[in-house]
Amino acid sequence: MEKLTGNCVVAQSGGPTAVINASLCGVVQEASKYPEIKRIYGAHNGILGVLLEEFYDLTAQPAEKIEALKRTPSAAVGSCRYKLKDPEKSKADYERIMEVFKAHDVRYFFYAGGNDSMDTADKLVKLAAEMKYDIRIMGIPKTIDNDLAETDHCPGYGSVIKYLATSVMEAGRDTESLYTSDTATVFETMGRNAGWIAAGTALAARSRQDAPHLIYLPEVPFSLPKFIEDVKGVLRELGRCFIVVGEGLVDDRGQYVTAQSTGFAVDAFGHRQLGGVGELLQQVVEKEVGVKCRYNRLGTCQRQAIHFASLTDSKEAYMAGVAAVRQAVHGKTGFMISLVRASEDPYKCTTGLATLRDVANGEKKVPRNWINAAGNFPGADFISYARPLIRGEVRIQVGDDGLPVFVRFEKNFIPKRTGRDYKPGG
Amino acid sequence: MEKLTGNCVVAQSGGPTAVINASLCGVVQEASKYPEIKRIYGAHNGILGVLLEEFYDLTAQPAEKIEALKRTPSAAVGSCRYKLKDPEKSKADYERIMEVFKAHDVRYFFYAGGNDSMDTADKLVKLAAEMKYDIRIMGIPKTIDNDLAETDHCPGYGSVIKYLATSVMEAGRDTESLYTSDTATVFETMGRNAGWIAAGTALAARSRQDAPHLIYLPEVPFSLPKFIEDVKGVLRELGRCFIVVGEGLVDDRGQYVTAQSTGFAVDAFGHRQLGGVGELLQQVVEKEVGVKCRYNRLGTCQRQAIHFASLTDSKEAYMAGVAAVRQAVHGKTGFMISLVRASEDPYKCTTGLATLRDVANGEKKVPRNWINAAGNFPGADFISYARPLIRGEVRIQVGDDGLPVFVRFEKNFIPKRTGRDYKPGG
Repeated sequence: MEKLTGNCVVAQSGGPTAVINASLCGVVQEASKYPEIKRIYGAHNGILGVLLEEFYDLTAQPAEKIEALKRTPSAAVGSCRYKLKDPEKSKADYERIMEVFKAHDVRYFFYAGGNDSMDTADKLVKLAAEMKYDIRIMGIPKTIDNDLAETDHCPGYGSVIKYLATSVMEAGRDTESLYTSDTATVFETMGRNAGWIAAGTALAARSRQDAPHLIYLPEVPFSLPKFIEDVKGVLRELGRCFIVVGEGLVDDRGQYVTAQSTGFAVDAFGHRQLGGVGELLQQVVEKEVGVKCRYNRLGTCQRQAIHFASLTDSKEAYMAGVAAVRQAVHGKTGFMISLVRASEDPYKCTTGLATLRDVANGEKKVPRNWINAAGNFPGADFISYARPLIRGEVRIQVGDDGLPVFVRFEKNFIPKRTGRDYKPGG
Repeated sequence: MEKLTGNCVVAQSGGPTAVINASLCGVVQEASKYPEIKRIYGAHNGILGVLLEEFYDLTAQPAEKIEALKRTPSAAVGSCRYKLKDPEKSKADYERIMEVFKAHDVRYFFYAGGNDSMDTADKLVKLAAEMKYDIRIMGIPKTIDNDLAETDHCPGYGSVIKYLATSVMEAGRDTESLYTSDTATVFETMGRNAGWIAAGTALAARSRQDAPHLIYLPEVPFSLPKFIEDVKGVLRELGRCFIVVGEGLVDDRGQYVTAQSTGFAVDAFGHRQLGGVGELLQQVVEKEVGVKCRYNRLGTCQRQAIHFASLTDSKEAYMAGVAAVRQAVHGKTGFMISLVRASEDPYKCTTGLATLRDVANGEKKVPRNWINAAGNFPGADFISYARPLIRGEVRIQVGDDGLPVFVRFEKNFIPKRTGRDYKPGG
């Protein structure tokens, strides 16, 4: 294996998570060990930072600040939802990226993101090969949605379900103690096309008394009459009902159940931005079942809750960052680091390699046989799968004022070298 | 002071909080110390449990389970929103309560709740005096809304704002890292008529960079044009905007800004059940300001978040329970325990006594001069007031499965003694 010497760029993309900075920390700490990696740059706002030539100099950051990334949620160097055009239609962005990489002697590029980011990374690998520019490009998995192909699970997922299961336990006690007036609660989770997040709240239900009592996932076509019957059944049994719904519920024609509502924007990737199914079903419960119903929607709080994040998840996110650097230094390019469940009991997780092409735009859903026959709760196989992912708690720093302490990088970007401005999408 | 011997009933009422069980724990542990208090009963579902003669025997519970109440959110013996009729119109419920108290030789009644509960307790004090039934009735303050009169602050408040400020910090980092696409966020808090909860999120803003950037309270008439200008101003300055809104925002005619929306139920106390202002303003930002906006609504999760609750708050909730028992044993009746800020720096809190009549249906709002002139952020006086209330973290128990462990009482009620069934509201 030929030693490749030059600078390194790390970028974060898409919806940030509580532990994506643990991956960033892993990249920086591991990359610092290899003399062939000269300086470590953080692209400001994902691939936009490359296009605009805006780089944080992470090599210049104090070691304590890099270490503190493990307890700082969201993307410390910034993220974006920018999607590069299909290179068949316009190669401008890709060529700009290569121009910037060359100008800064970037020989290593680490991209933490989801399906779309792996697609971008894959296209960059191909372009670099065409241009005979020697660079090693590695993907680092990142998504609370847990829907990436080729990996057992995704960094970010364990933390979101640990926090949501805890929140369901807590809000469940609210419903339990106040059931004579506030009898039902609908709890809406993220998860656009896959129900992994909603399913994860099942971990809260240690007994039949515990919330949640019903969980609906996008994997099972949603039927309003059946939903109403389900809720009535739980009310007859327990006198209260706590319902978890994934935001992307669809009917038997594949239409979002919120499709008749208005105001849903379409994000830059062409996906529908959902929201509102919780409120919709709260109204259904009040009108059709006839009990008072509340709804909770934790929104972006759920994916950033480092204050009760999974230590297992954080360590795996870190490990994925470390592995990406190690593999690249040892000659690999064009892969995403995958998480491999090496052992079930005791749970043990190692890393593997998945080709970016296989991951790009792939999508992994909750298998139908991991959901009960009634389609309203995950089954034992899912529970076994999810349980080890939420163990342990990230130890955050709490200030004298009783609130967490996070780090933030000053926006002192390294000097530009390409000598021209660029407008993304050009 | 005459020694009064008999049994004791403790009840929890209204919307539960993360620390109302700490007050319950304080009552049980303190009451156990006095030989004149024979047995300690927990009324199932607040005053409903008295009317229906459903009592947990808390004396029979293991000491560890009582201690574990400090780390169990919501009302462990159940709560309710049941409002007794005006005794001028019907005394049936009041007479039933006295019947049950007599049958069970109840000589101490501790009622943890908000304004309405103190009103109920006050009426019971008067009725008992009329009937010459010797009983000591004490109120224990409980409301996340922090709107009770005659007390510096209310148990439950410190925990809700500690958790919400933390959630705002975390979601604020989401907005900060993704501002090129998801530029604004609206974060809706509870707080029906008073803005204490929304105001408390100001503690998250240690610097101008930090969320939240704008906070709107029901105390200041809400103007949509001014709101839009405020948001545009923050966007010009920072490129992103994080907005906190209390659920009960009103316009300059005192109308809820959500009044044109439909579906708001009226709860049993005749208050409007609010919700939806977050979504409304999210749509306003998208349409009128023209940037993508998310909204978060933590709902009942906010008031039960024992996993990141304020230790100061929990200790004060416990102290209020203890003080209620101590004062009653020493002859007091007809008072609510108040929290008294004995010292500012270092912060020190003691208990005092407020007459139930003064507290009943009183309401304390955020003073206008504790809010900035623009009406869009709390001022320094509020910050000084709120800061000490969130210090320290309640240490919860986390199971091997990575989730909190709470306690639950079996529904084994003590035998009935009145020999008749009763229908509340009769």
